[in-house]
Amino acid sequence: MRCEILCTGSELVEGRTSETNASWIIQKLAPLGIQAARVTILPDDARAITQEIREALARVRCVILTGGLGPTRDDVTRQAIARAAHRPLAEHPAARAALARWFAGRVMPVANRNQALMPQGAEPLANPAGTAPGIWISLPGGKTVASVPGVPHEMRRMIEEEVIPRLAGRAGPARAVRQLSVFGLSEAAVDAQVERLPKGVRYGITVRGIRVQLTFSAPARRRLAVEETARRLERILGRQGGLVLAGDADLAVETHRRLVRARATLAVAESCTGGRVAAMLTAVPGMSKVLIESVVTYANLSKIRRLRVSRVLLRRSGAVSHEVAAAMARGARKTSGADYALAVTGIAGPACAAPGAVRSGAAGRPEGETPEKPVGLVWLGFAGPGGVEATSLHLKGDRETIQTRAAEWALLFLLRSTIHELRVNPR
Amino acid sequence: MRCEILCTGSELVEGRTSETNASWIIQKLAPLGIQAARVTILPDDARAITQEIREALARVRCVILTGGLGPTRDDVTRQAIARAAHRPLAEHPAARAALARWFAGRVMPVANRNQALMPQGAEPLANPAGTAPGIWISLPGGKTVASVPGVPHEMRRMIEEEVIPRLAGRAGPARAVRQLSVFGLSEAAVDAQVERLPKGVRYGITVRGIRVQLTFSAPARRRLAVEETARRLERILGRQGGLVLAGDADLAVETHRRLVRARATLAVAESCTGGRVAAMLTAVPGMSKVLIESVVTYANLSKIRRLRVSRVLLRRSGAVSHEVAAAMARGARKTSGADYALAVTGIAGPACAAPGAVRSGAAGRPEGETPEKPVGLVWLGFAGPGGVEATSLHLKGDRETIQTRAAEWALLFLLRSTIHELRVNPR
Repeated sequence: MRCEILCTGSELVEGRTSETNASWIIQKLAPLGIQAARVTILPDDARAITQEIREALARVRCVILTGGLGPTRDDVTRQAIARAAHRPLAEHPAARAALARWFAGRVMPVANRNQALMPQGAEPLANPAGTAPGIWISLPGGKTVASVPGVPHEMRRMIEEEVIPRLAGRAGPARAVRQLSVFGLSEAAVDAQVERLPKGVRYGITVRGIRVQLTFSAPARRRLAVEETARRLERILGRQGGLVLAGDADLAVETHRRLVRARATLAVAESCTGGRVAAMLTAVPGMSKVLIESVVTYANLSKIRRLRVSRVLLRRSGAVSHEVAAAMARGARKTSGADYALAVTGIAGPACAAPGAVRSGAAGRPEGETPEKPVGLVWLGFAGPGGVEATSLHLKGDRETIQTRAAEWALLFLLRSTIHELRVNPR
Repeated sequence: MRCEILCTGSELVEGRTSETNASWIIQKLAPLGIQAARVTILPDDARAITQEIREALARVRCVILTGGLGPTRDDVTRQAIARAAHRPLAEHPAARAALARWFAGRVMPVANRNQALMPQGAEPLANPAGTAPGIWISLPGGKTVASVPGVPHEMRRMIEEEVIPRLAGRAGPARAVRQLSVFGLSEAAVDAQVERLPKGVRYGITVRGIRVQLTFSAPARRRLAVEETARRLERILGRQGGLVLAGDADLAVETHRRLVRARATLAVAESCTGGRVAAMLTAVPGMSKVLIESVVTYANLSKIRRLRVSRVLLRRSGAVSHEVAAAMARGARKTSGADYALAVTGIAGPACAAPGAVRSGAAGRPEGETPEKPVGLVWLGFAGPGGVEATSLHLKGDRETIQTRAAEWALLFLLRSTIHELRVNPR
């Protein structure tokens, strides 16, 4: 089954807000076997939206709209759906009751009453997080229009709780889907391992940051073939040195899971990533159970004081070096009392490395860069009960890309290092 | 003049990559007086793209395409433009020469030769960063199609260097535009101050994070009226307590600018923001000149050891308190030797606050939350040569929103605090 997604809102075509809902919805629909054939972003223009709904319904079986369900005159999605479906708008008792509950004990502004209007025959979709009910309407020819607010957290709950359960029944024969996230191998290296697939099994390969994602799918009756294929690739890619996780697992979540299981604690020392490793980790609820601290030692003085890196070592080897990465990790582990420590030091482009790393005086060269140490050079250090290790990366791209990729690689390095260490068991 | 933007790429409708080019292009076109009427995202489907180009040309004067200019069979934009314009494709000598220069000294893969194909009458747009030349074609009726690659850094340079100069001449009379970024006031509070505007001056108001952006514009001959309006609002909003910066200035860039000017250094201590303040700061090249370090003291033990926050204070006041925020700032300043220090401690939702902050035993309550200290409570601390101050925030939203907003407010608090301090002059 194919669908189209229509995102409405003048802020989206005026560049004030970036549209992010469509790709989230697309990812939720894929496992149901529903593919997006098009995404259209339109301003709050009732005529254009009405026209686009009609055209989309002529092309596909299902149209999903986001935005335009608020109480103000800008919000025209209700009217547009009614016109496109040739149905009059009328107050829907259930939608009215939900609004009354939302405003219980307060006076409902007159404008909000409009939100109870639904095209005839439509069903309101419950919005637990806001005033705007969604709209679900079935039309002749097995066509469907679903409409949810554009506010991301309202949209997400309503797609998951209201739209997907209703769509699941209509999507036709379900497909068996298995996804693998592979870290530490290039797209080409992963692709080269996908050889002959069992009959009917399709695969897709995509890259997001350092993640190479493989998706295998087949008609539901071929579920076993899909699972066997995924298991086989997991083994092969693991032997090639990849870290293979199920689904779209996250490096930070995986770090948390493993450390909690091992009852181990972690400390981080960052230089060129400037807090990005800590930010990735602390996005995971419960991280305070395992993460003691991260020290963003941007200046050399900070590396010396906070992590007890030797001044001599910094002078001799430079801040971006095997020796300093190892010393930062060792120092972070000792000074924090954590079981494991991860350290990152590198040159992200103009001015990422600490001033102390500037050793060449060449004019016009990015701060921190030397002929032997180009922009993109990053050293990672790990310290655990079993000892200390370090490895280097050579990253390409602008400052932001290098900082982000370095943080991702650092977590991967931590996971790989702790896999070995956890067998030793720190406690 | 109105335009439409057509982004092509199966990865965009399959949810593997989020489309970000369109809003960037829209922002670049606005000062030329070119408005986007629609954004369409389509898979690599030559028929659908051809059809959409034709329809867009019937609606607006200019169509801008991104993506689909690569050398592989997936890349169908060239063919689609040729079909939509009823022009045959032929090798363009200048495009061929540019490819030859790109591959100088290497063998050009056969597939890349396709990239020199242009619809008859089209002009290749130079791509300094990749192999794919863009396409510029003028069609009857004053219509234009411009096509650039989808790779963001190639797209950006080509829009700025090739497309905008060509469009500038066709966009009709230019408009005078002035933007203000207001921090620390709500959208409603800012809006309330925009009263009668001079004749012909229009304004728009939008919100991104804690930034409220005002845009004033008028026909070019009314430039003075636009500038006077912006200056007047800047004064009024400043008096209301807002921090008003020109254009779309960035809090981290502004922090950097002011500290460099004052020759002052900064240290940061973060708890619930988990590295996000440091990450925002270190996104700015040259930050190593002023930022000594950021300590992400996630556990109470880390606050005690790294920042010398007293154990008694943590027990008595809790980690999320006026007293601890002030003590963290004071400790960060002292232990780092920086001129200024900023501290953040709060409850971002499940498990943001350090375990020591859990004082109620209520089951099912987010870690760190107590009846007096709800999720979203954040304390900010500042220490400088003139003393220490602290302030609290009450933020709404999910974990990610609270963490991000808290980091933005923290930078604003720092800027406001240093404005006073810098008059004292720390050195």
